[in-house]
Amino acid sequence: MSSVRLTRYQQLADELAGSIHSGVLRPGDRLPSVRDLRRQRGVSPSTIFHAYAALESQGLVEARARSGYFVRARSPLTRLAPETAQPSGRVTPVAISELVFELLGSTRDADVVPLGSAFPAPALFPFDALARAGARAMRRLGPAQISGALTAGDDSLRAHVRRRYALNGVSLRADELIVTNGAMEALNLCLQAVTRPGDVVVVESPTFYAALQALERLHLKAVEVETDPIEGVRLDALEALLKRQKVAACWFMPTFQNPLGALMPNASKQQLVQLLARHGVPLIEDDVYAELHFGARRPLPAKAFDQDGLVLHCSSFSKSLAPGYRVGWAAAGRFARDVERLKMMMSLASSIPPQLAVSEYLVQGGFDRHLRNLRGALESQHLAARALIERYFPKGTRMTKPQGGYFVWLELPKGVDALDIHHQAMARSISTAPGVLFSADRRFTRHLRLNVGHPVNAQVKSALKWLGTMAKAHSATGSA
Amino acid sequence: MSSVRLTRYQQLADELAGSIHSGVLRPGDRLPSVRDLRRQRGVSPSTIFHAYAALESQGLVEARARSGYFVRARSPLTRLAPETAQPSGRVTPVAISELVFELLGSTRDADVVPLGSAFPAPALFPFDALARAGARAMRRLGPAQISGALTAGDDSLRAHVRRRYALNGVSLRADELIVTNGAMEALNLCLQAVTRPGDVVVVESPTFYAALQALERLHLKAVEVETDPIEGVRLDALEALLKRQKVAACWFMPTFQNPLGALMPNASKQQLVQLLARHGVPLIEDDVYAELHFGARRPLPAKAFDQDGLVLHCSSFSKSLAPGYRVGWAAAGRFARDVERLKMMMSLASSIPPQLAVSEYLVQGGFDRHLRNLRGALESQHLAARALIERYFPKGTRMTKPQGGYFVWLELPKGVDALDIHHQAMARSISTAPGVLFSADRRFTRHLRLNVGHPVNAQVKSALKWLGTMAKAHSATGSA
Repeated sequence: MSSVRLTRYQQLADELAGSIHSGVLRPGDRLPSVRDLRRQRGVSPSTIFHAYAALESQGLVEARARSGYFVRARSPLTRLAPETAQPSGRVTPVAISELVFELLGSTRDADVVPLGSAFPAPALFPFDALARAGARAMRRLGPAQISGALTAGDDSLRAHVRRRYALNGVSLRADELIVTNGAMEALNLCLQAVTRPGDVVVVESPTFYAALQALERLHLKAVEVETDPIEGVRLDALEALLKRQKVAACWFMPTFQNPLGALMPNASKQQLVQLLARHGVPLIEDDVYAELHFGARRPLPAKAFDQDGLVLHCSSFSKSLAPGYRVGWAAAGRFARDVERLKMMMSLASSIPPQLAVSEYLVQGGFDRHLRNLRGALESQHLAARALIERYFPKGTRMTKPQGGYFVWLELPKGVDALDIHHQAMARSISTAPGVLFSADRRFTRHLRLNVGHPVNAQVKSALKWLGTMAKAHSATGSA
Repeated sequence: MSSVRLTRYQQLADELAGSIHSGVLRPGDRLPSVRDLRRQRGVSPSTIFHAYAALESQGLVEARARSGYFVRARSPLTRLAPETAQPSGRVTPVAISELVFELLGSTRDADVVPLGSAFPAPALFPFDALARAGARAMRRLGPAQISGALTAGDDSLRAHVRRRYALNGVSLRADELIVTNGAMEALNLCLQAVTRPGDVVVVESPTFYAALQALERLHLKAVEVETDPIEGVRLDALEALLKRQKVAACWFMPTFQNPLGALMPNASKQQLVQLLARHGVPLIEDDVYAELHFGARRPLPAKAFDQDGLVLHCSSFSKSLAPGYRVGWAAAGRFARDVERLKMMMSLASSIPPQLAVSEYLVQGGFDRHLRNLRGALESQHLAARALIERYFPKGTRMTKPQGGYFVWLELPKGVDALDIHHQAMARSISTAPGVLFSADRRFTRHLRLNVGHPVNAQVKSALKWLGTMAKAHSATGSA
């Protein structure tokens, strides 16, 4: 079981970030001086310096020479965030798969502009270094080590994964960590470990469609909970839901949620874990985007606050290092043994060569340098794409401004049918992920998730321009 | 959809093999002369020559110079085959997993004599050549090809697999073939594609325990069908069962069944497929041992006779080439699209590097040479182990004599508790797979499955001697 106490500086930074997000502190406002804050709060100067540095690295405040820290002006590009959805609160049987396959079926064709893709550009990843590492590792090993693949996965890889969590202050038990065929298998196995057919599972609103598909595959029902586009799941709404509805589990993505990009503050993650522990409800945490943070530190997972073994934390190297290698994992707390058994029954063990390649790559070093480059590339692609959306999309378009990951979520003006735009775009070989994919009851009809994980080249520019123009035309028609 | 008509010579060979197995033709009997048979049956001499050659390669007959073909004497080692089980015919909810994990949990420890293992010796496989092939393939590929892993799997690998089937006279549609994380995932996805929780599935008796676990995982019920230790599922018993019981699918292993090693003759496979087609029941065919045949030709899969797309054929390279690589496949007939979608939902896609390694290995050649060596090693290990069992086990012990694979199934004399022997053996670091693992209702209490896929070295010899001695002691006590 892992557990982290938020340090004082993190608590302070979170609190100030909350004030900035909620508008209590506004662009241009000066943060309290160290002396004032020290007096008011009884915290040490070093705690305050740390907290301000954290806020600076998150892009929320800036230091001005000899004047102190100020809340940063919102970028002139910043549009309003999309409105928080008001889910019905109804328990819904899930039947989304047909739509997902229909709408995303041809998204991965090479000649399609990949704005609907779920994957970042392959060129951002060190495939050559991985291949060399894999070849080295395979040469070194004996047959028994290769063929004797254990269900839980390669020991050296598991040790590396645990070490990386530990460096972030999250301690995972050795025996709760199971290597899986990508995070997708981890999530599916965890979901099955804590549910029976017919059970109800809480998901975000909007929800990553693969979560809905997993529910559908296991004959589960979904209930959506109100989710803030900036700070994620609304805990008051979740608490109310838990009081009126028996649920078997929550499946959330507290860090850089897909599609919103929402990031729950550390304090909220802690409260979430505590709330669920009070109700005895397991949390399946999809944490695949956490390494893609633009701020200075990797956001803590909800798992960091897990005292009761109720958090089934799932992640992978697929978005951070090795797409196509399908090396993921689950740290499943008190359900680890069940998850391992389900894994054994489902696919016996994960393939050994990719695990060894990743493990060897991690030994040789270079992962953190790669991650810095990757984050930098994704952040600048975000900026470039957002600037184009700002320029070409109609007035009234709202969009998210995530602090990590590679998705932008657009809310188009009233009257615009995003599904219609999607179909017209596909006819021009431009893919998008229309909002209806992200809800069990097909809301989000004027929303689009756009992938900004690819270089914003001429093709992408012209695709964004075309989409914006279409949205304008729709918007004019719709309001006429 | 694939379909093969049995050639005349295969029909004739099957018929004669049947007569030999059933005792109509006995050791030392002369087969009819070509002239006689030609006259009786109106078949061409070439058909007869082919049929006799096939029987010779199966070890059933021998040619004597200038005298014709004779039924071979049974090896002096040949004990009686185990008796055909008489399953209850009851529909049984499955709860076998705990027992499987309990009994096989420590089987894979390196210092345990692996007679209970499900895997052959790692040293029998060309891991170095695979690693070199993998390194070459990865160097050649661009990032987009590695990260763009499609759910159905790498195209070149799929083409190779289809080509190998075609060489054996089995044509698979390109779009029905899906690469999976080993055969285990293929089987699980196929099972899910054709069932809903609560459905009834027919399995063999005894059954591979992983099939029972898969049923349990999907909340399905099992009904066992009478299964001959030599020729597999009894079609009359299956037909009777289908008439009285609605079933959602059959999960069978018609070639070198685990644990019996039974091989359904081609004609029976064809009748099986036709029978199921008449009842509209899908067949999940686990064909993972087919390449490990001791006879001259790879036995045809049931899939070869599939006219209706009702056979979901599953196999892998895990037993034939690359253990630990987890490269398997499903050829799922009319359910291929459903299986592909389930695969996408469950694990998105299979890892690319292992697929490329296997594909490149197949390009470079050497697979067939490796297979000949592997089959030779397994067959001689069979002989050696069977000789030891013959020597050390008590009178009344029956055992199978499979024509492929690496399992021997023992039926110990009445009064012997195989589970008890298993526990005592484990205490001495000798693993066995006790019979209770192979049935939903825990029959086969005096049966053991022994792995003969490892070199019969001093350790294995002394383990077999010890097991035999224990069985003798039990047998004496039991009958006292």
